[in-house]
Amino acid sequence: MHIKVDFQPVGRHVQVESGTTILEAAQAAGVGLSAVCGGAGSCGTCLVRLSADAPVSPPKAIEREALRPEDLAAGLRLACQVELYGSTRVEVPPESLSAPQRTQVEGEERPVELAPQVRAYDLRLPPATQADLRADYERLSDALVAAGAPRPTRRPLCVLAGLPNLLRENDWGVRVGLRGDEIVNVAAPGTPLLGLAVDIGTTKVAGYLVDLLSGETLAMRGLMNPQIAYGEDVMARIAYAIQHEDGLQVLQQAIVDALNGLARDLCAEGATHFENASHLTLDPSQIVEAVVVGNTAMHHLFLGLPVKQLGLAPYVAAVSAPLDVPASAIGLGLAPGATVHLLPNIAGFVGADHVSMLLATGTHLKDGVVLSLDIGTNTEITLAAHGRMFACSTASGPAFEGAHIRDGMRAAQGAIERVRITDSRLEYQTIGDEPPVGICGSGILDAVAQLRLAGVLNRRGAMDRDNPLVRQGEDGPEVVLAPAPRTRHGRDVVLSRKDVSEIQLAKGAMRAGIEILLEHTGLTADDIEEFIIAGAFGTYIDVRSAVAIGMFPPLPLERFRQVGNAAGIGAKLALLSSAQRAAAEALAARVEYLELTNYADFQHSFAKALSL
Amino acid sequence: MHIKVDFQPVGRHVQVESGTTILEAAQAAGVGLSAVCGGAGSCGTCLVRLSADAPVSPPKAIEREALRPEDLAAGLRLACQVELYGSTRVEVPPESLSAPQRTQVEGEERPVELAPQVRAYDLRLPPATQADLRADYERLSDALVAAGAPRPTRRPLCVLAGLPNLLRENDWGVRVGLRGDEIVNVAAPGTPLLGLAVDIGTTKVAGYLVDLLSGETLAMRGLMNPQIAYGEDVMARIAYAIQHEDGLQVLQQAIVDALNGLARDLCAEGATHFENASHLTLDPSQIVEAVVVGNTAMHHLFLGLPVKQLGLAPYVAAVSAPLDVPASAIGLGLAPGATVHLLPNIAGFVGADHVSMLLATGTHLKDGVVLSLDIGTNTEITLAAHGRMFACSTASGPAFEGAHIRDGMRAAQGAIERVRITDSRLEYQTIGDEPPVGICGSGILDAVAQLRLAGVLNRRGAMDRDNPLVRQGEDGPEVVLAPAPRTRHGRDVVLSRKDVSEIQLAKGAMRAGIEILLEHTGLTADDIEEFIIAGAFGTYIDVRSAVAIGMFPPLPLERFRQVGNAAGIGAKLALLSSAQRAAAEALAARVEYLELTNYADFQHSFAKALSL
Repeated sequence: MHIKVDFQPVGRHVQVESGTTILEAAQAAGVGLSAVCGGAGSCGTCLVRLSADAPVSPPKAIEREALRPEDLAAGLRLACQVELYGSTRVEVPPESLSAPQRTQVEGEERPVELAPQVRAYDLRLPPATQADLRADYERLSDALVAAGAPRPTRRPLCVLAGLPNLLRENDWGVRVGLRGDEIVNVAAPGTPLLGLAVDIGTTKVAGYLVDLLSGETLAMRGLMNPQIAYGEDVMARIAYAIQHEDGLQVLQQAIVDALNGLARDLCAEGATHFENASHLTLDPSQIVEAVVVGNTAMHHLFLGLPVKQLGLAPYVAAVSAPLDVPASAIGLGLAPGATVHLLPNIAGFVGADHVSMLLATGTHLKDGVVLSLDIGTNTEITLAAHGRMFACSTASGPAFEGAHIRDGMRAAQGAIERVRITDSRLEYQTIGDEPPVGICGSGILDAVAQLRLAGVLNRRGAMDRDNPLVRQGEDGPEVVLAPAPRTRHGRDVVLSRKDVSEIQLAKGAMRAGIEILLEHTGLTADDIEEFIIAGAFGTYIDVRSAVAIGMFPPLPLERFRQVGNAAGIGAKLALLSSAQRAAAEALAARVEYLELTNYADFQHSFAKALSL
Repeated sequence: MHIKVDFQPVGRHVQVESGTTILEAAQAAGVGLSAVCGGAGSCGTCLVRLSADAPVSPPKAIEREALRPEDLAAGLRLACQVELYGSTRVEVPPESLSAPQRTQVEGEERPVELAPQVRAYDLRLPPATQADLRADYERLSDALVAAGAPRPTRRPLCVLAGLPNLLRENDWGVRVGLRGDEIVNVAAPGTPLLGLAVDIGTTKVAGYLVDLLSGETLAMRGLMNPQIAYGEDVMARIAYAIQHEDGLQVLQQAIVDALNGLARDLCAEGATHFENASHLTLDPSQIVEAVVVGNTAMHHLFLGLPVKQLGLAPYVAAVSAPLDVPASAIGLGLAPGATVHLLPNIAGFVGADHVSMLLATGTHLKDGVVLSLDIGTNTEITLAAHGRMFACSTASGPAFEGAHIRDGMRAAQGAIERVRITDSRLEYQTIGDEPPVGICGSGILDAVAQLRLAGVLNRRGAMDRDNPLVRQGEDGPEVVLAPAPRTRHGRDVVLSRKDVSEIQLAKGAMRAGIEILLEHTGLTADDIEEFIIAGAFGTYIDVRSAVAIGMFPPLPLERFRQVGNAAGIGAKLALLSSAQRAAAEALAARVEYLELTNYADFQHSFAKALSL
């Protein structure tokens, strides 16, 4: 019996015989699973996680020895010991991968004046005496006012609770974090005042640790969104949340746990930044504010807001307005009085991450005609034209993340990321220069463009069966991108006719969205003065390929700008500057959302945009 | 071996032989412990709670049968089965008492215009459609503004989380609770909007359930403060919080659990109030706001604020300012967005309960000279004189709660509460007209006054050994208040010379505080136009007795006013009216606190005030 094994978050699928071990399946799929001892069960490096109902062999004695009972109960197993008896999803934790998966955290920075919401006040209070019996808080409040701060009117319990001991242990010295008229933190003199910016993507999470006193970025890190274990895309996760009684809590807990880990890792990394203070340790309890962005579904799942209505027409959000949420209310272990600020959403499928991207790229500040887009399963597009902004979301699907593509995968080690055809010879480049395992988004885009330019594909996406690069595969014509002897798993990596169709659907949706926005504003593609491409995938694509297949309009190359993880950078801007945060709220309110399904023209534009 | 058994919260102590059962000890102490089966272990009504290290016999088979393992683990035992081998404190839950302990909840009411912080808006929203894609919250926000409400700027997550399902389940109808510009609750149309006012006394807790739409009090209840199990008075509890690692949390949890139970009980009782809505059930989740008052230590323990600095000179509070705390942050199970408002404290030993009392009695509104006091282990006194207010706190001690008095007890069944001497014959009255068990505060006060008036006691408190009422006891001269044949436990109830000394100390501290306040303002006792006595004990005392022993100055009786639980009534006023809440804050700021130990005169005044 053939069974399907789905490795996440790498995004590789493979078919194997029943009875195959997970380690063997990973090798067949080309997933770089660590196995230091070669599968003897002695090293414990091939740790994977399975769901409770996975159709696999029960834990063997060797696993019971290697793993604690609570780990086994949590679904952890040794991949080399587990035999597969049915189709299974296997979660591969980052530490079990032989090489890390690529996560995009860098983005084009934009300088802003440092003016964070939380300001530090360093005070030394007169001690309490028989002659000065003010309560601790009133003593602090008076000292703040004397130091030029506004008198606090909001005083969270969690902050007050720490005050009496802190004052007496530090000889009445204190560093106060004040956010407007709210005391958010009291700490020993000299304690760092940190901020955390996070972009929660459906697939990847990017985090930035910032020194709010200097504005410096102390550390940045990417990680995979652990919610992938419950569904690869937004709709799958919404379904999980609806169908399981505790689904929403499970998804929320997964991302909150990940952010807690991220905060710890960033602090450990950022501590090395303070060269002249080797005694200084950074700690998440010093993080007094976080700014979090994500698409509307990620935003809701992070906050534990219901998502059912996001999954049903007319797909409306629970809330669009910006939110300030106590970190403790969602289980984030930051400073006791820390706030998490969520940038506003625009619509059910145009979220805070898009607002953040617009902020980071300065789209809202441009006078002329600027198109900004963030490519993902849903691609959000905003057209800024002479002071107005129009946005839409198109269902471009997960093809660029490797899903629904025969040999597709995410941008991990061994993924083909570049393809060139010169003199009918197909050449490729892989991530990490590893033997090929599959093909990721930018590689697929290149392949289709190169095959089209070489005449192997026609406008409709059909393959020229007479071309030497084309052969007849199981499902119709296909092109071998990397032949078996050179691949990691010893099988050809191919691009099929069906794969090309998937790309046509994805890029067609994107292009149709662009065209509707132009049409709505009475402009043509050539009016676009700047074409901004944000997001991880957008960073790695070859724009010429995107133009070649008609995904983007044929503009001069210098009008395109690939800005990296602009959503993450926008979150950082909103962390560093109250003015930027206000700008984000204002710009979100200015954006006019167009629901594409309300446009009779959309189907026509879409059909037209399918052509290569 | 003689061992001491301390029954709480009744406040009775007794000495028994080692090997005595708790039920026998209770009978010896006159504590009305239920024992329907007569001590056979079959009825389970004599349930008591012991600490884990109590020196008693281990659970017998009969107890293992009657009690669940988790109950046994929590220290619950059958009093008839447990043998005592050493001095032990026994907690008697209210349900194990044959008659309830007296708790004072009523107080003199003062009419106010209904203007609560939380207002109800009944809305029906236009449904979300393809043509109207506003997020749920923005839809609600717009409808609120259309209904004349301010646009909300604060939107707690816990409220937003309930919104999507609520709207769709109620055909887009909703009752919104708005507190200023903060949404605190969304509920199905017609859901009651309730408020809770609570006075947390060191010994007793009083709660009031209020309909915020009509201003009516739906139910009121008193209960014993369960923290008594960890220390009878404020200082003992502060010590417990400091000496035990989780002491603060344990004390907080005890009172929070009690308040959750109180809220449930009040709802059950209040439901009967709505005659025309028999389908209506009241539920703590409908309570959108609570106002809580208590002395500074009770205030801090309820909030989980540190109390160490309250127990050490110069005895300052962590915070004096009024606080708004999310109910969920302290584990109160009210409406998800409910706030708990704490009235301000004045000083470490003049708390929010005193502010509340001043508010309820209108002390701050008087033009003339008014003295208001609340008698307890600490007696807080405020003198309002021609627009200024001066407050102090005097350590009057626990004698009026029966502590340190040989046969003293709290105001429970069988306590002697009135004493009269006519023609050298001593007569008494007990609570519930039960056979005497001991003597409570008002009875002690009467006894001393009557004995003084009858010439049995002289000015210094010495007993006239020649008087037939006086006999020689173990510790010196004593007066038999109730002879053995008439008492419940078959032992004489007596008042000793030492007991008289305790009362002298207590009343002396109180009177000295009054004199210092008068002196500070250049007034004499006769200038006092109104003398307001608040609190449970103050309600039950005979003012003539208090004047007779010099506890109060000798004013015409009509100047005295006994107002009952004014602190609880003040909390209710602050719940019903934003103006009253503001008035409480303003009055607390106006009160000038006098630290008596700073007054050289205090010792002199105190010594003088000891005379009877």
